[in-house]
Amino acid sequence: MSDRTELSQLGEFGLIEHLTKDLKTTQASTIKGVGDDAAVIDRGDHYELISTDMLVEGVHFDMSYTPIKHLGYKAVSVNLSDIYAMNGTPTQITVSIAVSSRFPIEAMDELYSGISEACERYDVDLVGGDTTSSLTGLIISITAIGSVAKEDVTYRSGAQEHDLVCVSGDLGGAYIGLQILEREKEVWKENPNVQPDLEGFDYVLERILKPEPRADVIAVLKEQGIKPTSMIDISDGLGSELLHLCKQSDCGVRIYEEKIPIDASTAAQCQEFGLEPSVCALNGGEDYELLFTVRQSDFEKISKVKEVVIVGHISDKASGAATVYPQGEEIQIKAQGWKSF
Amino acid sequence: MSDRTELSQLGEFGLIEHLTKDLKTTQASTIKGVGDDAAVIDRGDHYELISTDMLVEGVHFDMSYTPIKHLGYKAVSVNLSDIYAMNGTPTQITVSIAVSSRFPIEAMDELYSGISEACERYDVDLVGGDTTSSLTGLIISITAIGSVAKEDVTYRSGAQEHDLVCVSGDLGGAYIGLQILEREKEVWKENPNVQPDLEGFDYVLERILKPEPRADVIAVLKEQGIKPTSMIDISDGLGSELLHLCKQSDCGVRIYEEKIPIDASTAAQCQEFGLEPSVCALNGGEDYELLFTVRQSDFEKISKVKEVVIVGHISDKASGAATVYPQGEEIQIKAQGWKSF
Repeated sequence: MSDRTELSQLGEFGLIEHLTKDLKTTQASTIKGVGDDAAVIDRGDHYELISTDMLVEGVHFDMSYTPIKHLGYKAVSVNLSDIYAMNGTPTQITVSIAVSSRFPIEAMDELYSGISEACERYDVDLVGGDTTSSLTGLIISITAIGSVAKEDVTYRSGAQEHDLVCVSGDLGGAYIGLQILEREKEVWKENPNVQPDLEGFDYVLERILKPEPRADVIAVLKEQGIKPTSMIDISDGLGSELLHLCKQSDCGVRIYEEKIPIDASTAAQCQEFGLEPSVCALNGGEDYELLFTVRQSDFEKISKVKEVVIVGHISDKASGAATVYPQGEEIQIKAQGWKSF
Repeated sequence: MSDRTELSQLGEFGLIEHLTKDLKTTQASTIKGVGDDAAVIDRGDHYELISTDMLVEGVHFDMSYTPIKHLGYKAVSVNLSDIYAMNGTPTQITVSIAVSSRFPIEAMDELYSGISEACERYDVDLVGGDTTSSLTGLIISITAIGSVAKEDVTYRSGAQEHDLVCVSGDLGGAYIGLQILEREKEVWKENPNVQPDLEGFDYVLERILKPEPRADVIAVLKEQGIKPTSMIDISDGLGSELLHLCKQSDCGVRIYEEKIPIDASTAAQCQEFGLEPSVCALNGGEDYELLFTVRQSDFEKISKVKEVVIVGHISDKASGAATVYPQGEEIQIKAQGWKSF
């Protein structure tokens, strides 16, 4: 009867695919459009990288427990992470905000102080933006610009069978940090006089509230002469990113559950919540670590990089994407990621 | 007692100035940051231009009378207009949207169909973006990328005393179109069975709902060998843009009221609303025409350009910015523009 199809029927990734599937590009300078961590534009002697993200209050962040200065810092971090995931260096950002009159100027000062701190930390210029009012909450839209030598650009699509699958840092911490903040919020809602109990949770709270993009990892890989064959940043959980990588590289993957890097405090808090740490790492989002593949011939070099662990290898497409458990059992990886509709 | 300063105390321009006044840039490639229609990045043999705009439902558009396809087209138009205002050519855009579940997929298809139509019309590639949910309405954030030969870039700051002040097309139409839509909305709210009476208002409705950026004017100026000394696009009303131009060029201006270009249908409808046409042109926004200055020595050349009229001249700073009326009376131009807080 009705011509109405709900957005929830497609989900976020489905909607993006649906809206962009027929896109054609005609500019000679457009090397890569929609479909990777950043667009790639030919600038003669180098490639320019462009990435953009929108953060919406109530969807991506909750002002009741998010320090607004950290929010500004994080909004920049998550965009720079996309530039690093192309093996590039961020150089400029634009920042657009829509803000309701609920926020005083002092809050905007704090937000921009966090934005500026991240810009300074990663040597990026804030070169433009837009500021407008919103009827309800706060919306932050950032576009990051970067550059990369043409021979260094790394796509999601370059992984080949037998390549080693690597992850930087550790995973699942941001997800557990978020669970703790949500738990304390519930306690506070029931009894506003109780102070939130956040002691001892520094690491996981920093993971969710003030993540750092892995500029250091990109620098070390370069120093060691390692060029990843494919790369993506881990914003929606390891499982979801592995599926993106396999789809675009037309391959399968085997990840060893016991190799997934998880911080000791993350693991301890997972247990308190009755959650399997590797499930948090596979399905929890917002870690902003890097997932990448390298040739087997780079095994010795990559083994020396302390910021990175090898978690598995690329397999043929027919084998699919699976996690291998210590007893040898294989479980297919399913998309969990962000479902915002 | 309180440390709270309301956003409304600063207004939109005040807030942007407040937040960006201490910004420093450190990247050698950053030629121009915040403060013009677009940022300017050095790409070796040319300059790259970057501009960004955010459109918020209930603030910038009203879904009750805005066809969503036109909205997509307009969102692209207003961004491209900023690139043309630097005397450049747009090449790519990114589009981020936040959308509530109120909108079905069919509405998103319409929105993207308008976006695609504008991209095709102006030969621009859609190369990236972000799609997420929002708790209330629709928010569209677009970043436009363009390029310009280094010797052709035109800033707001280049106007000099005695330069001729020029305007493309005609002004005030978008403002009157908006008044008509608002009037019919009120009628409809009182009696939902009455069909809106929009006949005969095609021109002004198109001006507000589906504006075109002036790619043609930039092309003609180039053909005629005219390089504007300064330029800005007219998004917030001629008066407001003249003040931006004077501030950044450190000059004054004299505009002749009878020279301000106003379409006959705009003028007729202004009278119906009891509004002075030139007041609509000076204070009404969203025309997306170009305001620019040229040297006196270009007088003959510019006089031949049918898309453009000369409306006045640049004066010394001490004389301020004023409109000169036919009897010789001068009235100082005051910032009216967009007050969204």
